Formats: sequence, C-alpha cells, structure tokens
Amino acid sequence: MSGSTFGALFRVTNFGESHGPAIGCVIDGCPPGMALSVADIQPELDRRRPGTSRHVTQRQEADQVEILSGVYEGLSTGTPICLLIRNTDQRSKDYANLLDTFRPGHADYSYWRKYGVRDPRGGGRSSARLTAPTVAAGAVARKWLREHHGTTFSGWMTALGEIEIPFEDERHIPDNAFFAPNATIVPQLEAHMDALRRAGDSCGARIRVVARGVPAGLGEPLYDRLDADIAYAMMGLNAVKGVEIGDGFGVVAQRGSEHGDELLPEGFASNHAGGVLGGISTGQDLVVTIAIKPTSSIRTSRRSIDREGRPFVVETVGRHDPCVGIRATPIAEALLALVVMDHALRHRAQCGDVRLPLPPLPAQA
Amino acid sequence: MSGSTFGALFRVTNFGESHGPAIGCVIDGCPPGMALSVADIQPELDRRRPGTSRHVTQRQEADQVEILSGVYEGLSTGTPICLLIRNTDQRSKDYANLLDTFRPGHADYSYWRKYGVRDPRGGGRSSARLTAPTVAAGAVARKWLREHHGTTFSGWMTALGEIEIPFEDERHIPDNAFFAPNATIVPQLEAHMDALRRAGDSCGARIRVVARGVPAGLGEPLYDRLDADIAYAMMGLNAVKGVEIGDGFGVVAQRGSEHGDELLPEGFASNHAGGVLGGISTGQDLVVTIAIKPTSSIRTSRRSIDREGRPFVVETVGRHDPCVGIRATPIAEALLALVVMDHALRHRAQCGDVRLPLPPLPAQA
Amino acid sequence: MSGSTFGALFRVTNFGESHGPAIGCVIDGCPPGMALSVADIQPELDRRRPGTSRHVTQRQEADQVEILSGVYEGLSTGTPICLLIRNTDQRSKDYANLLDTFRPGHADYSYWRKYGVRDPRGGGRSSARLTAPTVAAGAVARKWLREHHGTTFSGWMTALGEIEIPFEDERHIPDNAFFAPNATIVPQLEAHMDALRRAGDSCGARIRVVARGVPAGLGEPLYDRLDADIAYAMMGLNAVKGVEIGDGFGVVAQRGSEHGDELLPEGFASNHAGGVLGGISTGQDLVVTIAIKPTSSIRTSRRSIDREGRPFVVETVGRHDPCVGIRATPIAEALLALVVMDHALRHRAQCGDVRLPLPPLPAQA
Amino acid sequence: MSGSTFGALFRVTNFGESHGPAIGCVIDGCPPGMALSVADIQPELDRRRPGTSRHVTQRQEADQVEILSGVYEGLSTGTPICLLIRNTDQRSKDYANLLDTFRPGHADYSYWRKYGVRDPRGGGRSSARLTAPTVAAGAVARKWLREHHGTTFSGWMTALGEIEIPFEDERHIPDNAFFAPNATIVPQLEAHMDALRRAGDSCGARIRVVARGVPAGLGEPLYDRLDADIAYAMMGLNAVKGVEIGDGFGVVAQRGSEHGDELLPEGFASNHAGGVLGGISTGQDLVVTIAIKPTSSIRTSRRSIDREGRPFVVETVGRHDPCVGIRATPIAEALLALVVMDHALRHRAQCGDVRLPLPPLPAQA
Repeated sequence: MSGSTFGALFRVTNFGESHGPAIGCVIDGCPPGMALSVADIQPELDRRRPGTSRHVTQRQEADQVEILSGVYEGLSTGTPICLLIRNTDQRSKDYANLLDTFRPGHADYSYWRKYGVRDPRGGGRSSARLTAPTVAAGAVARKWLREHHGTTFSGWMTALGEIEIPFEDERHIPDNAFFAPNATIVPQLEAHMDALRRAGDSCGARIRVVARGVPAGLGEPLYDRLDADIAYAMMGLNAVKGVEIGDGFGVVAQRGSEHGDELLPEGFASNHAGGVLGGISTGQDLVVTIAIKPTSSIRTSRRSIDREGRPFVVETVGRHDPCVGIRATPIAEALLALVVMDHALRHRAQCGDVRLPLPPLPAQA
Repeated sequence: MSGSTFGALFRVTNFGESHGPAIGCVIDGCPPGMALSVADIQPELDRRRPGTSRHVTQRQEADQVEILSGVYEGLSTGTPICLLIRNTDQRSKDYANLLDTFRPGHADYSYWRKYGVRDPRGGGRSSARLTAPTVAAGAVARKWLREHHGTTFSGWMTALGEIEIPFEDERHIPDNAFFAPNATIVPQLEAHMDALRRAGDSCGARIRVVARGVPAGLGEPLYDRLDADIAYAMMGLNAVKGVEIGDGFGVVAQRGSEHGDELLPEGFASNHAGGVLGGISTGQDLVVTIAIKPTSSIRTSRRSIDREGRPFVVETVGRHDPCVGIRATPIAEALLALVVMDHALRHRAQCGDVRLPLPPLPAQA
Repeated sequence: MSGSTFGALFRVTNFGESHGPAIGCVIDGCPPGMALSVADIQPELDRRRPGTSRHVTQRQEADQVEILSGVYEGLSTGTPICLLIRNTDQRSKDYANLLDTFRPGHADYSYWRKYGVRDPRGGGRSSARLTAPTVAAGAVARKWLREHHGTTFSGWMTALGEIEIPFEDERHIPDNAFFAPNATIVPQLEAHMDALRRAGDSCGARIRVVARGVPAGLGEPLYDRLDADIAYAMMGLNAVKGVEIGDGFGVVAQRGSEHGDELLPEGFASNHAGGVLGGISTGQDLVVTIAIKPTSSIRTSRRSIDREGRPFVVETVGRHDPCVGIRATPIAEALLALVVMDHALRHRAQCGDVRLPLPPLPAQA
Repeated sequence: MSGSTFGALFRVTNFGESHGPAIGCVIDGCPPGMALSVADIQPELDRRRPGTSRHVTQRQEADQVEILSGVYEGLSTGTPICLLIRNTDQRSKDYANLLDTFRPGHADYSYWRKYGVRDPRGGGRSSARLTAPTVAAGAVARKWLREHHGTTFSGWMTALGEIEIPFEDERHIPDNAFFAPNATIVPQLEAHMDALRRAGDSCGARIRVVARGVPAGLGEPLYDRLDADIAYAMMGLNAVKGVEIGDGFGVVAQRGSEHGDELLPEGFASNHAGGVLGGISTGQDLVVTIAIKPTSSIRTSRRSIDREGRPFVVETVGRHDPCVGIRATPIAEALLALVVMDHALRHRAQCGDVRLPLPPLPAQA
C-alpha cells in the first residue's frame, strides 16, 4: 500500500525517482503564518548536496528547490506546501543490463520481487537522492521548532569505518567534508577514503544527532512513542542498520543504579535516557546514534544472478558515494526534526491546555 | 493525540492500566475464516506471564484472555476482535506518596509533564504489563502468518548484563527462565540475578528475534519500510534503547565487499542485511537485536524531586523485575509478528497480482 | 482492511456483535484532566436504549456502560478510555436457517460476499445495536465540547414516513417516544406506528441535528472538510440513505443571490450554508438532515435466495424496530459531536496559535 | 492538521492554489504494472476544463497534465505518481481589496478564521480549480478498475436550477455543455443560463453518478462503510450540500415492503439501496445523487463586512461559473472512482482469499 508519507499531523509525502524529471514532497499540516522562503530551505539542501568534495558522488545536482504552493506573500498559509527539485544531471546511459541483474546489497532484488517491474535508472526510487525532499521538509520543521520552542538540531560523525572520531568541538563540523567534530583527525579520514576509492570498495559510518530545547511531554504511549518514531525515522534512512537512543546498546551492561537519571531541583543529573522516558520527552537533549552500512555499489566484482536465476558477475561502475554515511548527517538531523515537529503538533492537539505548577527542569544540572 | 494503535491494516488498539480493572486490545482488520480460540493465544501470554520464576516480578497475574468479539463458531469473522485480560492482582496499597515524586529512569516525570494528571497505580499505563495485549495480538498474527506463509518467529537472550550468552541450540530456550539458547550458562545467569536482587539493583539485557519464512516483497518505500516499522515496534517496547537489523552496529567497520550479500542460484550466500534491502524483505530471515535497559524501579536510594521541585530521596519497593529483559523475548517476537502481518496485508493490497518468472530465492545458500 | 475506527485525533474504535458477550469502544486521544464518570455517559445511552416504548424493539437491554480504563480518580488521564457494554438479552434461539438465506434490504448478503463467513446472531455486527458504543463515545465528546467551547447538540424528527412534523418547540422532544418537537402531532405518530406494526411493515424517517456554539475555523480543506466528515459520519449510520447540510437539496432551485449568507456587523443574516463554507465552520449553527430508510426486518414475506442461489421466501420474526429512525436522533447527535470534537483537536494542532483582530461573528443576526 | 489526502490505500495528496504556479497531486499506492500515460488522464481533465462553452468560466486553462514520477517505460512502478498541472492563466490583477472583505457564501471568511492568513488569488485553495488534480487521479483509478473489474462510471445532470432534466439516453451526455442525458431540453437549459448571466446571478444543480460493474464486498463496517466514504467524497466537493445513495430522501416515505430489494436467482429485483447494504457493496450499480449550490461569486451586490467587522458591500467581478454544477459531473465521477478504487484495495488486503460457492448475483434481474 501507500507508504511514502511521513508523520501524522505534519505530513510529508515524498515522490520522484533518481533519474526521472523531478523529485519533491508535499508538506501538509504546516501551521500558518510562518515566514517561509526558498532561503530557509536551500542551505539545508546544500549541506547534503552531492559533488561537494572528492569523497562523495561526483554527480552534479544543483538541488534547487522551488516552492509550488502553500506560501503567499512570504507566509505559510496552512495549506499544502509542495517543494519541487528538478533533476538536472540525468546522464543518458544504457541501464538495460542492470534491468536483468541484481546488485548484491542493493534494493534491486527486493524491489523487483515486490513490484514485478523496476525503474533501474540510478536505483530509481531506492536511491539516496530521495532523501533530498526529506531534508527540504526538515528545514521547514526546524524553522517552526526554532521559532516556537527554541529547539535546535545538530549532528556529526562519530566513526568512519573502523576509525573512531573523538568529539572535540561542534565548531569543526562545517569545516570538513565528513561532519567531523574534530579538526585534527580530518587528514586521517581523507587518507582512509582515498585508499578505499582506489580499492574500489566502501565503508560504513556512525552518526550522532542531537536535538536541544525539546519541549517536555512529546510522544504518545503506547505505540507512537517519541523514541519509537525516532527509530522508525532513522531506520528508514537508506543504509541505516542500527539505531540507539541515549546510551543505546551500552545499557545492556549497565546497572539500574547507574542508568536511571536522577532529578535535582537544578536539573537532571545525567542523560543516559537520551531525553525520553516511557516514550515521552523529558526536556533533556534527544540523543540518537545510527549505524550506516557500507555503500553497496562498489567496483569490486560480486556474484549475483539474473532474472532467470542464472549466475552473473556484477561490477558497479558509476558515480557513487564510497561512504554514504558522509552525507547522512544533515539527513538524520532533518528526520529528527520531522519527528519532533509532528509530535509537537500531536501534543498540542490533545494536551494544548495542560498547565503545571513546575516549569520544565533544565536539560542537565 | 491518539497513539495507542499499532499497524495500518492489521490494527491493534491497546487499552488499560496496570492496576485498573482490565487491560486488552482490539484487533481490527484480521482476515476472516481463520480458526481462532483462546487456546491459540493463551500459550503466548503464559510465556511472558509474571511470577513464573524467582527472577521476575512476583506479582501473580493469571493473564487469562477472553475473546469478546470477532469470532463466531470458532472462526474469525473479519470484524474487530476484542481481547480482554482482567487484572486480578490489584494489591490495595497507598500510592499517595508516589503521586508527588518521580522515580529516576521511570516515566513518572514525562507522563506528568505531558498529561498534567497521572495514574500512579503500578505505573499506570507505562507499566510493562501493557505488553500483554500486544503479545495476545501477536499470537493471532503468528497463527495467520504460519498458516498462510509458513512464517515462524523465535527469540532468545544473547546477553544478561555483562554476561554474553553464546548461542548453542534453540531447543534450550523453553527450558530456562531466561530464554537462553544455552543450557550450561544458566546457573551463571541465576547467580547473577540472585546477586543483583540481594544488592537491590537491576541489569540490562540483549535479545535477538528472528523471523523465518518471511515472504519477499514486504515493506513500503520510502518511509514505511519494513525495517523502519520493525525499529518503531521494537523501540516502542518498554526499556528498549537500541535496535539493530542484521549486522547492526557491526556494519560501521565493515567494507562493502564484505557486507553486501551475494545472490547465488541456490540462494543468498550470507545474511548481513538481516533480511531487508531498500526497506523491502528479501525472503531471507529477518534478524533483529534489541538492547534493554536495566529496570528503573530498584531498592537503591536515588535522588529526585517532588511536584514542587523540592529534593526528595526515592526508594522503590514493590514487586518489580530486576531485569525486564528476561520477559522481553516473547514480546519482541510478538511485535515482529505484528509488523510482518501488517506488511503482508499491505503488500497484498497493492501488489496482490504481481507474478514473477523466478520463485523466491532460498533464504540462505 | 480495518475500518472500525472513527476520527483522526479523537479516535473511537468500535467492537462487538449484537448477540456476542459484549460491545464497546476504545476512545484514544481524549484530552486529560476532564472530570468523567459513568454518570456522564449513561443518560445518552438511555436515550437510545431499546424497549422504552411500544414503538421500538422490545429487546430488553440495560445498556449499562462500564469504564475499563483511561480515568483515574474521576479525571481522564489522556490514555485510552475503554467503554464496555455487556449484552444481557442474548435470547437463545436457532439462527441456523438464517445462516443460509439473505433478508432483502439487510446486510446479510453483502457481509457474506465480503467475508465468506457470517455471524448471524441478530445481524451480528451489522445490527443497529453497535451504535450504542458510538453514543457512549459521543457523550464524552459532548462533555468536552460543552466545557471548552460551550457547544451543544440537539436533534429531532422532522418526518415519520409520509407525515411531516412541523417544528414547534424543542422542549417537547423529551416528552414523546419520537423525539418530535411538536406535542400535538404525537397521537397521529402513534396511530401510524400501531397501524404499521399490525401490517407487519415498516417506514422511514427524517431527522435533523443541530450543533450550536461551534467554534469557527474547524475543518480541513481539501478533502477532510467538516461537511465531508459530517456526511461520512451520518451516511455511516445504519439505514441512512441521504445527508444534507444547511438547505441541502433545496439549493438546487435556489439563486446565488438568495443562497449566500450575508455578513453583517451583528452577525450572519441567514444560515442557508448550515454552518460550513469551503469545508470550514463559520461559527453559525451546524444544521444536518438525514433520511433513514424503513427497517428491512419485517414480517411481510419477501423473495430471496439461499447460499446456493436457490429461491427462498423470507419472513423475519423477532424483536425489531418498525422504524429505526425513531431511535436515531441521539445517535446522530453523538456522531455530529464526534466529528466536531475531532476537528476541534485537529484545528488546535495546526492553528492553535492563530490570533485574529475580529472576534467570531454571532451565529445569526 | 493535514487533511489534503484522500483514501487509505490508494492515497491522493492534493496541493496547489488557483493562481499559484501549479496545482497537482501525488498518488501513492497505485498497483504496479499498469500501462499509464498522459493520454489516459488528459481526456478526463478536458471534460472538466473551463472555457469550453459560454456557460462556464471563461478562464482559459490548458490543464495539461505532466507525469513527474511513478511511471517507467509506460508502466506504473508502484511508487508515487506525481501529476503536475501548471497554471497558465494567472491574470495579474489587484486582489488587495479582496483581502480585506468577505464574499457571502464563499470560503473567504471561514479560511480567514481558520488560518489567520489567506491567499486571495482566485479563491486560493478553496477554488473549484483544485478539483482538477482529483479528476486526474480519478482517471488512474478508473483505468485500473476497468481493467481489473470491468467497472465503469458515468454521470449526468438531473436538474439545472428549477428545471428537471428527464433521463432519455446516456448517449446525449457528451453532446451538450451540461452533461444532460437529454437532447431536446438543451435549448431550454441554454436559455436559462443566458438569462442568469444577464441577471448577474447563479443557480444550483443536481447530478447523478453511477458506477457499474462494482465488485460485491467492498466497504468496511462499522465506520468506513462504502456509502460513508462516498458521502465524504461527494460532500467534500465544492458547493455540494446534499448526498443521496439509491433512493435517498425518497426512503422517508417508503415502506419496508417496498424498499428492500428482493434477491432472485437471476439477480436483484430492484435497486432501491443504490448498491450498498450495511455499508458493503452488493454488486448492484452504485447510484449517487448530489445537490450543488448556486455559485457564490455573482455580480449582484451583497452585504458583508471587512476584517475589522465594518459593513461593506461586495460585488464579485471576474470569470466565474454561473452554475458550478455544470462542470461537476466528471469530478463526481472521479470521486466515486477514487472511493471504489480505495475500497477495492482495502478489500483485497483483508479478504483477498475469500472464496464463495455462489458467483456474484447479476446487478439487476
């Protein structure tokens, strides 16, 4: 059935294929009266844009976003906002042989089994290119959350392949191609990528995303919990194979006396929970970590089959990211923003008039 | 807003509180004509039932399920199936002081911030007790999937606190209180739990769940991917802080040449992907791993505050699981079954007449 | 697929069959902190209860509602409210022959074609008895709307069969079995029903429902318009075959210069629109009219077929309403309340901070 | 909240404003493998296109549809189909005064109360122009239903203002501007419209839409009944104030012995029900009638107020349909097709393997 819509109240419906005429999304449910223009969205798209360093795909896409509806005289009207991104680099080439075989680790086989037909151009709909509209929609959510709740989002790489990236300072993030919060490690990361590229191979990555200034009370027990929806969002991002909230898999070896975050009059004493308790935000920072698998499209020869089940050797040529994790940071931020935005509206719907004697606790003591 | 419904087509709406008169769920969308009785559901409830060993909460609940609707003369009619479980062990006690303070690591604070009011009886709605209806609904899904697709589900513990549990044989699982696939390690696990209980502390756990015989083609790109919905389901389970599909966080340090599962005429050569590519099932086993945090309700004193923000020292007495992970295995199986069931129906809706020349590949070569 | 849930944010999931052990519903999304008890709900159930006059079915049902969850110490907690109504008058009788034939005008045939199986007991799920949980949920919505917006709902019969019922005064409505706003016509209505009953036949009715004090701004263009959702709600009520908003079918012969309601500083000059323009409430009264078909279960012989397609003559005995429209008024009121409630929350979600210079216009000048 | 999406499984998300750069929709959930091109869609758009006779708005819009996604090499891929229609006739004019006043009978006031901001260009989103994407989506649904079930849709005008249009023959429908199934009455209709236009006034209309070859078993009790969803669809169409299924308001004065359609071995003996019993299709023709109000935008002076509540006299100039009902027929057909399509997929999801001994009854004996 349909499954290309994200969110319950701030709904983003994504459309398009990698090498079709255009990709885009329709945002339905955006609150009215917010100042909104291309200038609010384009910078986020530019952060994930391909072709910006030698470590990512050399496909050249301007990724210029166009607002087709939902904004009048610079203000959101409350009606659907259609964002359109034309595909400009549709290199004409013969995909005919791709149609008949399946690249290991790629969605070729599963798409074919589902639909019976397949759009092979650049991976069609399974391409990471389809995250661009998500990022554009996330920019709208971020703006509203920042203006209404002071919520901000940031993300960075914590590991590139086997290289751990120690956190130094967020200020370093925009200064390198890896979204690394560490200036000194960048040459090592670059050398790693260059070697991979020469080897015709790819590697994984680990990304952390943090939301600050999140209102307390977001999330719907029992099922549509805030953490559940975050996990849904993140695992739905191409190539993600693991999601953690707060201490994540580290909790397995923890004791309860260590894990539970104490509450002090001046704030929480720690944040092992990652900002969610019982599926509902506490007002602490949301802390999310994701694992991204190595790109499946590599030059190395792999065994596969064709549509009749006969053996076939596949070698992928073309312009691919040797580590899709490199461009994943702004996408993961956008996804987290979309989840928080949706839950902010959901919360207002049901609990818009809840008043408490105690102001929210500071995020951390 | 409302958030207590799981699934798009096989919809499970959960209701009830830990110490209210009853808990239960309504399953809407179950295919008609399936033989169904309490005997199909009760065994799964019994697997997660409290009070069955000294390592879990000593609360005594019969967890007897009653089918109130949707079944006529032993067959599902296609109309909503209401499953009711009466709470029998509602120990009368004074929760008054609980109302005014917040247990660290527990949902007390976040629920209060959301709703302004709070049902403190046994954690109210945030109690793990509310997973019983989920397990009951999962039993219905499992039956249909087994009968229609031969799909089966199993799960086991892979770590209890810092103790890794090597996989030996699934046959051992029902023979111990831990769902451990390993007979020799059980005494060590028991000693660990006894020590914890004496210390008034708790520990985490790691669980693996596997679905076998999953049809290929399930999952909806772009957002409602099968893996996204699995992550949503698992992270929505109480105390879960991390979810992995396939190799999970192990992919970070992998190479593409290692990770991508090759396709051979006789089947997939490996299953690093955990059964999902591009968000769609491949027909391989679904392999899911979850991290469960240590129980927050412990006898150890913790610092907290009351509703006016004044400092307060909390000590939780009562009948709590020192490791909620111990009873999590059947719940995680049920959640996985619910996701697969929902997507089986979703797939049939859109792609019910897709026919392919090649039969599904065997799960593994 | 599942289809037993009403509403997007104030979600009511209905379950049960006419002659099963119980019927009921789960309300998810109710705002927290509202005083709620059985005493708020039971009176509405009593208004639609069977067996209260000789003109309706003589089935004796106490229709006692039980609140199973979602309320703690007399306040809604914001979590799902399960309302249960036990069926007490399950007269044991042989439905076996019913199983094999189809009553003309009844849902027997269509249910069988859909599900392949069928619960014949008193019509199973297609029975008007299933409106009881709707009425119960409506009572919760009415209370919240009255307390938060001063919205009230009332309804009355405007025609019984071919007898038009001139509107006199709403005060008469509770004084007769027909919900007629006219005292003098009641003897004529009673004579009409007595004659019908003697003839073993049934008749239709027309009902009007009005909501007063509806906030302006409710309704979502383009599709989830307030009037669209009202039409959905009303046409979904058993036996309804027509729905009108405002002047309804009368608009066909109107001129634009007559129909469009003028706005004056002291309020709207008229209400041909019935309170909705462009799918959004104007603050005027919502005015809805519905046509209810004659009961299909009649003693008169009708031609039908059995499951093998062979001819069969059907005569329905049993305790049926000779005019289902008689008890429809409180149900239609409840449905209108559910729609307004849902849209009140939907509106708050998106537009909760819209502020205007002009207060809402009075409903009428 | 968001409300611009139609359907549960065959989901159509509509976007755009009357005088913005473009309007369109995203269809998510279309089955894969269906041949689809602009040629399948454009003819339906042409049927509702403005400027085709002197009796409708003289706005000149090409209404050329562009398929942006979801189709590859002439086949639907199962992924979202984005349909874009550029607005070409955006006559530049000063809407400034419109911004400050409210046209009686128009959505100006209600939109403003909802959103606080308003896009006045040609009615913005409340314009009937927004039905074009609905018609385009309907064309896709019609194609699939025709190919898979042989379902067809047709509609015609049954009354223009006070003029009743006797049904003669469907063959006449495409031969006149009114969709009248009657050739001899056309001059009378034209004279009526000419007189109205001279008077600067407008009139209402009544339309009938019929679906033939509808599979039995479509519709979801209890709430998402087929007739409920039809009523939702139709009442959601601009200017519709009344909806009837089958005999509609005629049922009020009918007897049960007359209304209930008898079943004979050779088919149903009549179709008072209009093809739906208990909310589920019977396999008979779906018969739907709608009442359309007179256009609100007329040249006649009307009293209104401005944003500060001060009196103001409004006269609408511009290019408006003096009877919006004239172009409503293809839109109503499209809406009916969308409802049937959605329910066909919903039915397949849950009941895809129901098998019965008796083939569906012929629609009529």
